[in-house]
Amino acid sequence: LGNGASALAACDKVGTAPFLLTMADHLIDPSLIKAVLRAGPREGEVCLAVDRHKADIFDPQDATKVTLSNDRVVRIGKGLEVWDAADTGVFLCTRGLFEGIRLAGARQKHSLSDAVGELAAAGRVIAVDVSGASWLDVDTPEALREARRRLLATLSKGGEDGYVSACLNRPISTRLSARLADTAVTPNQISVVSFLISVIGAGLLALGPYAANLVGGLVIQLASIIDGCDGEIARLKQLASPGGGWLDTLLDRYADLAVALAVTFAYATSHPGPLPWLGGLLAACGFILASYVTKEFALRHGRSYPNDVLNRLKRRDLRLFAICLGAIVGRPFEALLAVGALSHACVVGILIRGWAISRSNQSYEGG
Amino acid sequence: LGNGASALAACDKVGTAPFLLTMADHLIDPSLIKAVLRAGPREGEVCLAVDRHKADIFDPQDATKVTLSNDRVVRIGKGLEVWDAADTGVFLCTRGLFEGIRLAGARQKHSLSDAVGELAAAGRVIAVDVSGASWLDVDTPEALREARRRLLATLSKGGEDGYVSACLNRPISTRLSARLADTAVTPNQISVVSFLISVIGAGLLALGPYAANLVGGLVIQLASIIDGCDGEIARLKQLASPGGGWLDTLLDRYADLAVALAVTFAYATSHPGPLPWLGGLLAACGFILASYVTKEFALRHGRSYPNDVLNRLKRRDLRLFAICLGAIVGRPFEALLAVGALSHACVVGILIRGWAISRSNQSYEGG
Repeated sequence: LGNGASALAACDKVGTAPFLLTMADHLIDPSLIKAVLRAGPREGEVCLAVDRHKADIFDPQDATKVTLSNDRVVRIGKGLEVWDAADTGVFLCTRGLFEGIRLAGARQKHSLSDAVGELAAAGRVIAVDVSGASWLDVDTPEALREARRRLLATLSKGGEDGYVSACLNRPISTRLSARLADTAVTPNQISVVSFLISVIGAGLLALGPYAANLVGGLVIQLASIIDGCDGEIARLKQLASPGGGWLDTLLDRYADLAVALAVTFAYATSHPGPLPWLGGLLAACGFILASYVTKEFALRHGRSYPNDVLNRLKRRDLRLFAICLGAIVGRPFEALLAVGALSHACVVGILIRGWAISRSNQSYEGG
Repeated sequence: LGNGASALAACDKVGTAPFLLTMADHLIDPSLIKAVLRAGPREGEVCLAVDRHKADIFDPQDATKVTLSNDRVVRIGKGLEVWDAADTGVFLCTRGLFEGIRLAGARQKHSLSDAVGELAAAGRVIAVDVSGASWLDVDTPEALREARRRLLATLSKGGEDGYVSACLNRPISTRLSARLADTAVTPNQISVVSFLISVIGAGLLALGPYAANLVGGLVIQLASIIDGCDGEIARLKQLASPGGGWLDTLLDRYADLAVALAVTFAYATSHPGPLPWLGGLLAACGFILASYVTKEFALRHGRSYPNDVLNRLKRRDLRLFAICLGAIVGRPFEALLAVGALSHACVVGILIRGWAISRSNQSYEGG
């Protein structure tokens, strides 16, 4: 029996309201769902999301095709010679679907396409144009690779990445995540591994000799890259949710603290007096405050602080990259001071911007 | 004309649904409003919130009194000799109220009590029992003082205060706020003043001699007390909102940083080597992370981290008080290290608790 029979099994479970029917092996953009949900099938009708951009269809040979007459599907099938659009596998159905399945079944045809074909012949299938939206029927190893490629492309946090993250870390970490996706590795394990690598890097930076500093700098940059993978794996494996990442964000703060401490310690060993430590203390606090200030903004305003220049310049990716570069040129402490000062400048800038926003909202809550 | 005429002016503005009528010069607990809103007056009826706790009424002589029969008001007036409860000035009315006003007006009586009396005589006034809820008719200087006393009692952040704040700071700061309430001082001005006092205290702590340390310790405790006033004034003047306090919370972080830096500097001057600075750096970062961790929790879980022991032990009030005590006994650096270590212990404790909560929610979001 075909997938029409599978759909029929749900006949008693769905009520009388229109219901969504999608293929389990299709990767689809949420916009497709939204588009068909906006359609209003009349009693007995079925709406089908179709893609008219024939050139963009991944494997047109294997695609289920439709011919259209105005907004109605006239014919449907894989073997159509002349066709107008592809069936994306996303339907908004009324109970008319089951009628189609029974009609097709009576002719010993049991696929969903057969059922929809029966309804289409009666002019009861509305085509919802979703041309250009991303969808993929994952039937072959090639399609699976394409699916993974498309998912990975969505893994960066969009507009939220910092400069170094967008240009250097993310391209590497997404490739790493693609390899890790087939393993049992969890996001939290990656967070801990990234933290431990940071601490090893900090240990090397604390030692003093140039060679140790150089390796230490590269190691903390590696940790920064791996730090991107926990979120990527979480999103790739659909484990993402607002409740998690808690471990990651606090381990990041302690990793930064370890790096600042190590670089300051190494410098202070060869430069007596309180000034190196004063600088290191201010830098370490600047790193934590840089994170603190945008959390505080989000809490007070119920929305994220925009990823503007101030926000990007104070991010962890830039901070660790700068210290790595500093270690490469033999000046990790100077780099630490520079990004520490930059962090405080960004915190004060965000403080002023946030205060202006608060004032314009005429609001105050003591803390 | 009386206040019945004022109510009549709204006759064309209110629709046919029941509407709330309250006295503008009464201080009332929100629970009174909720109680009358739960009542369901029938067409032509009026519901009146009444208080049967005669002994608790602030100025019984001046109170409008009612006599009751079951849940109906029978008579109403200031001069009743025999009475069952006081009129709290909170009504849920139907358009029947205007009928009462017109009936009373026809007898040349124009107060709201007269109008309600007309309806009461017809059995159309329902008494809603709100006995024990706080309400106050602010007619006299004595009543104004009482109103201020009651408002101040609500100014502490309820269950959110730390140990030192609840026992020492809040009792002093509320008295201070009461005096400041009549001035033009704004919450943000208080935040800045508290910050500047902290910085002065930090400067004294950095100097070295015991006398300077002692005064510095007392000054930072004074700053901690004044830090409570910004939120109190904001709530007293009804300026509180989720968007504000932004300035205060960041100035607090920098004030803590200044104190940690000063105490460490003073100690490191007489104790060479990297250890004092290592300790001071860890303490300063601990203070900021202690604030950070509960902000992060609130962001991830959409609710505040509970004010449990871990939370109270890491709060700013305790931190500054401990350093003040340390300064008094001549050991500010040791006190700094102790509260720094305590802060980190609380951060790790909250990290573990938050992680357990995240795991039980089966959720993850990379950060």
